[in-house]
Amino acid sequence: MKKYCGIIFLLLILPYGLSAQQALFGGNNIVSPEINPDKTVTFRFVAPDAKEVKVSGDFLPANGYQPGSAPMTKGEKGIWSYTTAVLPSELYAYFFIVDGVRNYDPNNVYLVRDVATVTNIFIVEGGQANLYKVNKVPHGTVARRWYDSPATGLTRRITVYTPPGYETSNNNYPVLYLLHGMGGDEEAWINLGRTAQILDNLIAAGKALPMIVAMPNGNVVQSAAPGESDLGFYKPTMQLPNTMDGRMEESFPDVIKFVESSYRVQKNKAGRAIAGLSMGGFHSLHISRYYPGTFDYIGLFSPAISPDRNAKSKVYDNIDATLEIQYKSGYKLYWIAIGKTDFLYKQVSDYRAKLDGLKLPYTYRESEGGHIWLNWRIYLGEFVPMLFR
Amino acid sequence: MKKYCGIIFLLLILPYGLSAQQALFGGNNIVSPEINPDKTVTFRFVAPDAKEVKVSGDFLPANGYQPGSAPMTKGEKGIWSYTTAVLPSELYAYFFIVDGVRNYDPNNVYLVRDVATVTNIFIVEGGQANLYKVNKVPHGTVARRWYDSPATGLTRRITVYTPPGYETSNNNYPVLYLLHGMGGDEEAWINLGRTAQILDNLIAAGKALPMIVAMPNGNVVQSAAPGESDLGFYKPTMQLPNTMDGRMEESFPDVIKFVESSYRVQKNKAGRAIAGLSMGGFHSLHISRYYPGTFDYIGLFSPAISPDRNAKSKVYDNIDATLEIQYKSGYKLYWIAIGKTDFLYKQVSDYRAKLDGLKLPYTYRESEGGHIWLNWRIYLGEFVPMLFR
Repeated sequence: MKKYCGIIFLLLILPYGLSAQQALFGGNNIVSPEINPDKTVTFRFVAPDAKEVKVSGDFLPANGYQPGSAPMTKGEKGIWSYTTAVLPSELYAYFFIVDGVRNYDPNNVYLVRDVATVTNIFIVEGGQANLYKVNKVPHGTVARRWYDSPATGLTRRITVYTPPGYETSNNNYPVLYLLHGMGGDEEAWINLGRTAQILDNLIAAGKALPMIVAMPNGNVVQSAAPGESDLGFYKPTMQLPNTMDGRMEESFPDVIKFVESSYRVQKNKAGRAIAGLSMGGFHSLHISRYYPGTFDYIGLFSPAISPDRNAKSKVYDNIDATLEIQYKSGYKLYWIAIGKTDFLYKQVSDYRAKLDGLKLPYTYRESEGGHIWLNWRIYLGEFVPMLFR
Repeated sequence: MKKYCGIIFLLLILPYGLSAQQALFGGNNIVSPEINPDKTVTFRFVAPDAKEVKVSGDFLPANGYQPGSAPMTKGEKGIWSYTTAVLPSELYAYFFIVDGVRNYDPNNVYLVRDVATVTNIFIVEGGQANLYKVNKVPHGTVARRWYDSPATGLTRRITVYTPPGYETSNNNYPVLYLLHGMGGDEEAWINLGRTAQILDNLIAAGKALPMIVAMPNGNVVQSAAPGESDLGFYKPTMQLPNTMDGRMEESFPDVIKFVESSYRVQKNKAGRAIAGLSMGGFHSLHISRYYPGTFDYIGLFSPAISPDRNAKSKVYDNIDATLEIQYKSGYKLYWIAIGKTDFLYKQVSDYRAKLDGLKLPYTYRESEGGHIWLNWRIYLGEFVPMLFR
């Protein structure tokens, strides 16, 4: 039987490569990007008839709000290439521009979506980005679950990270509620933010305590991320209604209720943290203030501060007074981080002045750069080790 | 405070769109693909200076092993477009070819990876594909977990679907072990196969019983899908070592042990099914035979039949005799499905002849088409309703 099978197998294996093409549609047999030993990175793109090919990405000096770009050089077999300077360890995004038309790298299957745009990504190891890569360490579980949210009238999707050992222990774990920005959803922190990798790596290194990270969808009109709801495969948009009008804050108890009834968690202030980026920082600011005594740890990453001008919600009444109540209810860490060139820098400065005026304690972290995921991953990596101590 | 905030907010909201560009890099403000009310589909692509733009996809007549393509027409503002014929309800894949260079659709963020190739996808509703879309029905949980596999020497990643209600009930659930093909991994069935949507929809319609679906990685040399292991962001390949040499079958008890110790499941033959496509059909064939009395339901979707010619594993000894033992141990369904133009058709015919000769019962399903995901989704939708009755 085995000999017979061997012959059949040869006949059988040959067309695999071809048949696979049905869904695969080929691809170039070259490597791009290639991370060179000296931490330069070489990009390659096959376009024998193109007149001009450029690579554009966040590792090049930005051109205003556009990422910088650099011309690639045409070599043999129509392969255009470009090698960067030595790059600091980071997670980078890029694309190509072929005769004026934007393109992806067909040799790189690693892509992330940010709102309506998909870019290739790569990691330069050896420093900061070691926190973002998958290492040989114990890995937590990442689950996409659905929960009832009576306050929004929706059944909603949430991404939940549980740390290594959660399933086999009997411990109650603390929970970090981690909120995305405008245009984001329950996929943002896990994909763009590399949350699972950051938590796995910090926990394995003994730098963070094992914790659950709950990543809800902060757009109260959405049941789930684009493509994950019955709205189908629509084009995502940055602006959604009701994002900063109080409805997120008002409905947030549905999230806590779900998490605390579904997981073995510490159901007290000492076991709860809330943090978010941009709009999610705004939500974290107002949720933690509106529900004083709920969170011992608050993280505002490049936060927006002010509600929608039309917001009538009582969530935004008496902000100063409720901040003082929050302080009196007690918290262990109120952490504010922003980049020097962030367009929200002034608003955050004003908010810090307010806190100073009210004599409310907080920790301030100012980084380089602006309103970008690079900073939010850094902030998460710094914030998490301070939690639940 | 609110009035003040309103003014700040206006200043603050303006640059959002710009700042978001940092990671976003723009995109065209057009719709593509547009599913028209008559079930034709219009594609659009902006390329003012291009000489020729084509759309290529699996909804066009194939050109040998290549997908068919059709020329697009240049219209105003450099927008090229093409409208298909009326398309049957399905999930389709496509890409563009711009002056000979393959490109994605920058207006469609919905992409799937098959081995090393990423394609845009879209769904034409109203028939078969209603099973693949997210509908307003209760949704199960999808979790990516890691488990110890002593037989492979690895900690391995697995995707697990638990049905709606699993977390809040005390029932023990049956388990379908669902295996991918060559070049696939633990992401294949959930992404390309739309397993969560198929299960959600079948269960909601009362056509399938609630069940757990465990989707392990069938490549014993891999701990996880490309990009999800400490190997980093490498280029995936179709061919991996040790895929059909017995090691997957030998190590499969690690998978069952993990599932049965981690979930509330029926730990008996009546509560276990195993199915797979292509190489996964091969694995299902041999695992179910090598561990007789373990599975009451076996599904071979476009299966490969014969082991690696160099396979020395005892898994492949005495195939006929062990098939007879499997039969005597009892099974309720042995389901074989293949497309008429599948390159494995002859091998499957030979295998059916063997089963006929041995007088072993099975159910045969012959479909149109070949070795493609379109068929595997159809097979899953037909197989699952027959399970655990």
